[in-house]
Amino acid sequence: MCPKDVASFAAGEWIQPDNSAREIASAITGEVIARAGNATLDVQAMLDYARNIGGPGLRAMTFHDRARMLKALAQHLEANKQDLYDLSFDTGATQKDHLIDVDGGIGTTFVFASKGRREMPDSTVYTDGAVEQLSRHGTFMGQHICTSLPGVAVHINAFNFPVWGMLEKLAPTLLAGVPAIVKPATATCYVTEAAVRLMLDSGLLPEGALQLVSGGIGDMLDRLTCQDVVSFTGSAATALKLRQTPAIVENSVRFVAEQDSLNASILGPDAAPGSAEFDLFLKEVQREMTTKAGQKCTAIRRIIVPDAQVDAVIEGLSTALAKITIGDPRADSTRMGALVSAAQKRDVLEQAAKIATEATRVFGDPDDFTVEGADKDKGAFVPPMLFHCADPDAAQHVHDTEAFGPVSTVMGYRDLAHAAALANRGQGSLVASLITADPVVAREVTLNIAAFHGRVYINNATSMKESTGHGSPLPHMVHGGPGRAGGGEELGGVRAVKHYMQRTAVQGSPEILSAITGTWIPGAPETSDAAHPFTRRFGALAIGETLNTAPRTVTSDDIAHFAQFTGDTFYAHMDDAAAERNPFFPGRVAHGYLLLSFAAGMFVQPEEGPVLANTGLDSLRFMKPVVPGDSIKVRLTVKAKTPRNADYGEVRWRVTLTNQDDEMVAEYELLTMVAF
Amino acid sequence: MCPKDVASFAAGEWIQPDNSAREIASAITGEVIARAGNATLDVQAMLDYARNIGGPGLRAMTFHDRARMLKALAQHLEANKQDLYDLSFDTGATQKDHLIDVDGGIGTTFVFASKGRREMPDSTVYTDGAVEQLSRHGTFMGQHICTSLPGVAVHINAFNFPVWGMLEKLAPTLLAGVPAIVKPATATCYVTEAAVRLMLDSGLLPEGALQLVSGGIGDMLDRLTCQDVVSFTGSAATALKLRQTPAIVENSVRFVAEQDSLNASILGPDAAPGSAEFDLFLKEVQREMTTKAGQKCTAIRRIIVPDAQVDAVIEGLSTALAKITIGDPRADSTRMGALVSAAQKRDVLEQAAKIATEATRVFGDPDDFTVEGADKDKGAFVPPMLFHCADPDAAQHVHDTEAFGPVSTVMGYRDLAHAAALANRGQGSLVASLITADPVVAREVTLNIAAFHGRVYINNATSMKESTGHGSPLPHMVHGGPGRAGGGEELGGVRAVKHYMQRTAVQGSPEILSAITGTWIPGAPETSDAAHPFTRRFGALAIGETLNTAPRTVTSDDIAHFAQFTGDTFYAHMDDAAAERNPFFPGRVAHGYLLLSFAAGMFVQPEEGPVLANTGLDSLRFMKPVVPGDSIKVRLTVKAKTPRNADYGEVRWRVTLTNQDDEMVAEYELLTMVAF
Repeated sequence: MCPKDVASFAAGEWIQPDNSAREIASAITGEVIARAGNATLDVQAMLDYARNIGGPGLRAMTFHDRARMLKALAQHLEANKQDLYDLSFDTGATQKDHLIDVDGGIGTTFVFASKGRREMPDSTVYTDGAVEQLSRHGTFMGQHICTSLPGVAVHINAFNFPVWGMLEKLAPTLLAGVPAIVKPATATCYVTEAAVRLMLDSGLLPEGALQLVSGGIGDMLDRLTCQDVVSFTGSAATALKLRQTPAIVENSVRFVAEQDSLNASILGPDAAPGSAEFDLFLKEVQREMTTKAGQKCTAIRRIIVPDAQVDAVIEGLSTALAKITIGDPRADSTRMGALVSAAQKRDVLEQAAKIATEATRVFGDPDDFTVEGADKDKGAFVPPMLFHCADPDAAQHVHDTEAFGPVSTVMGYRDLAHAAALANRGQGSLVASLITADPVVAREVTLNIAAFHGRVYINNATSMKESTGHGSPLPHMVHGGPGRAGGGEELGGVRAVKHYMQRTAVQGSPEILSAITGTWIPGAPETSDAAHPFTRRFGALAIGETLNTAPRTVTSDDIAHFAQFTGDTFYAHMDDAAAERNPFFPGRVAHGYLLLSFAAGMFVQPEEGPVLANTGLDSLRFMKPVVPGDSIKVRLTVKAKTPRNADYGEVRWRVTLTNQDDEMVAEYELLTMVAF
Repeated sequence: MCPKDVASFAAGEWIQPDNSAREIASAITGEVIARAGNATLDVQAMLDYARNIGGPGLRAMTFHDRARMLKALAQHLEANKQDLYDLSFDTGATQKDHLIDVDGGIGTTFVFASKGRREMPDSTVYTDGAVEQLSRHGTFMGQHICTSLPGVAVHINAFNFPVWGMLEKLAPTLLAGVPAIVKPATATCYVTEAAVRLMLDSGLLPEGALQLVSGGIGDMLDRLTCQDVVSFTGSAATALKLRQTPAIVENSVRFVAEQDSLNASILGPDAAPGSAEFDLFLKEVQREMTTKAGQKCTAIRRIIVPDAQVDAVIEGLSTALAKITIGDPRADSTRMGALVSAAQKRDVLEQAAKIATEATRVFGDPDDFTVEGADKDKGAFVPPMLFHCADPDAAQHVHDTEAFGPVSTVMGYRDLAHAAALANRGQGSLVASLITADPVVAREVTLNIAAFHGRVYINNATSMKESTGHGSPLPHMVHGGPGRAGGGEELGGVRAVKHYMQRTAVQGSPEILSAITGTWIPGAPETSDAAHPFTRRFGALAIGETLNTAPRTVTSDDIAHFAQFTGDTFYAHMDDAAAERNPFFPGRVAHGYLLLSFAAGMFVQPEEGPVLANTGLDSLRFMKPVVPGDSIKVRLTVKAKTPRNADYGEVRWRVTLTNQDDEMVAEYELLTMVAF
């Protein structure tokens, strides 16, 4: 079989490998299956194409447009994922591993599509946080906004997740309106190339939004400016080298690093053998050691257990690991495939040997294990290897040496402070887990380790059926960690999108800020129309459109009647003397909900019209009591509009209730669905 | 007069300068007024003291404790600020400049004290963002938390704001629970030393929370770990050097840089001579050029005006600048003092000479200007210097060379796209301003420049009375910028506090997450007591305490009655057939506010008790319509508690309304004030 040529996609063209190409071998058979590399790639042309064609195209779309595009991309990949599975076996991965990589990547894209629609506006400006009142009379205010960087995102990915690793960066990048140049690790770039080809061929992406470098990226990083972003996943050593690129340091180029780290899992003192949590712990550790043959940046490298449970954990894990069938990943019976390459196997064995200077190997012998259905000597197979470190305080390698394979070390702890100290010896990691049913233990350990870990995963019998696994980064939660883990952050919902946008503090008058954000801000001009705003369709309603109602007097009878009708006979509404004793009230006052109800009565349009429903209300604050005889009026202003589906959109109204002296008695935001 | 010895405060001791000390001259007289430097300082002991004494002391306090401490510190500085004014004249600064530095710093501290109380919880864990539902049945959820870094913050400050520069970093650092080591620039460190001494002598700070290095910091940066933070303000060249410290790069130490940048101010095309905006523009530019003798990292270096207005702007500015009296800053008539030192004067003249290769000096001659009340040759005086660059597209120095004094360059633009392109030629700056009355211009310019600027300041006749000035960073808004400005962020309210905390994604069961965050999360255990929760005082209410009410049936009569009483006769409540045509309703439905009102009637306790008032409501969502005959019940759970003053605190209740089939019909968060 001829090796497959893995192409790059540069400035709109597919470019085949040239003489500089490197050969890529199957992880299973050792045969050369592909070639990648093109030293003649014009990286400046790629950057220009992204900046001049891709960026403008994406920035012309709103967040909702981009979210819909992501959803369509995810659907297209979903429909074609079998192609990606078929290719992935040669990376050494099993079908279960493919679910993490391929389905995990598609699922991540779906989540960003959904978050883009639900948590971002249908515009190109994201408002970050609340309006800040910078002046006494409100003529000068502040609002933070995020806008797309007009540069390019360079994604440098690790070999272990050729699909998820690309999509977890690409989805937030595209949602941010920034074009991406994806550079997968060469060892598995043939899978990434296939996924990129699917996306490009789908026609769903604007021109220039996505390019691919199969092979080296040349001097691309030397050409980056302050509007570009590098997102790197890989080893600490490579990150260290790349982040010192002169252009990156001099231009303050954002460099987001996510590095392999010495992740720990802690067994709670309550989780003794026989408990559901003890069994769960064994299961999680075994799974993290063997999934992707341990080639996961989040894999458990350090197993921290009560001194009294060290023997039981070693025994339990050994039993579990003994059941792992190693072999051809295409076989249904195989539980663990191969490492990605012979080079990676050499590296893992070297690092394991370092760990062995401080710890005893208690399970797994790289010189004596069985491989089913494949040639052990040709594929990059290793067995799971479990070590035991008897003196983890004195040890160093077990806390800083990563064998990027199915290798982990058990160590005992005396008490929770010791367990936390050991976990923190990793000097920063992506994730630490804790198996405990005890909330007090969970709180103590978490507060002592949180600053050293990007994620803390806690599991027990209550959550185990629905838990997602120590090693799984989720699109909703940040992925990254301090120190050894690279100091970066990815994922985490909209936070991930902001990594590709600039946050800018904008100051100005309410009118100016409203014009920039597309959101009405108190003090900005209010318009009104002869027609009641509730008679106007979504598209016809302008930001700032305002209804001022006639006043309504709240009587003593109203209050008494409302109390009797609703049952809310709180003394402040019933008894003048008692109300006066309350620090908030001058005497008997109207119910807050009476005011809300009257307000609705004052602004509602009874007839059928475009306003379909009141779906909710936010940030209601009662500011001044209303006493019998007060007269209230309502002001209702269109604050923001967000399409929700093909038929209607959400209109957010700012509502204020004022009394006869024009003092504000209540304010809130009202949500309605309005037909298009 | 003997020069003053400026001490360091290290590991609990004041340390006097040693033989390595450098002399510091008055900016006005050139006389040596102080000495600072102590090469024998034990920087490891300082780090240990901060990490082992200062950090634990601060972390034992809640955010509210720390906020109260900040308020007291600000009050103490306020009471003693005259001492700081008196010292500051020798830095070349006028009384007006002192208001920016000293009062500005104190004001910033007050704002953080206030934000800490209002926007952060009375605990040591800050929850960041909403709970993320990670599972179908809700047994496994996610919550991001921020916890204090158990390291030390090293603050490296610029010479221009010896008080504000310290406090704008110190306030958020202390609020985060992190000890600080402050290293002011030597040229003005005697002012910072006095401010630090005031704070330490106040006894308000826990031991180890604050240390001071007057002079060099030796190899302190080589000793930092992943739990430390460096916050740097100063020149791009120094930042570039420091951020490449091996320990910083290898350990992913957070390095927040705020660098001088080539800030621009744009005159809108609408703001022609004769308009209020034109005059405002001249005033802002003149003020930014001359305040602190132009030694502000936010000062306007590039004045970007319509081609047609270049001459008028040069003429107007020249007239305004001619009115600036230069001289002894102690004199009331002085409008501009001196640069900080003779060395700084040399540097400014050198940089101005570079600019002069591309631009013509149209105002100010360093060889011919008048100084009142001081010796021009002994003090570091320079006049304001205005340049005009006729070809800003071809020029380079005017966009990247900063003369850190009263130096600025006028350049013309053809259209708004050109103006934006020129502003962005700075390759990242702290702030750009725009003077325009036109919201359309404001939007277009802002969206084209926002990604290059940390702050965009827009001013016009509406906001000018209350506006805070192009050059003033405010504690509420982020300060920092991309690229040339350092790529960092400071201030911006709680955002600033988070720079000294680690964000961690915590995953687990609701019970576990509630224990960690101190906030009730749906699915966490609910407790109940024989006593109604509204009869219990703030301190007695436990997180998770729940009231389940008896059901109440909503009748057709109730709906009709409510409609008639409130005036809310929306057809969905009145007319079965019309309601059925609405996509949200199966037929006639109850008013949302009727449900809220009935709910209150079902849970309220009529008698006087510790619950004083319902102050508001958040995140109300109506989830399922209630039709006549449905029976609703209410569940009310203590979600969070926040003390508000000496007498009472806010209790946030999660409220759910369910129907007879246990389907949720509405949910919201109710706010009450409850007596201690």
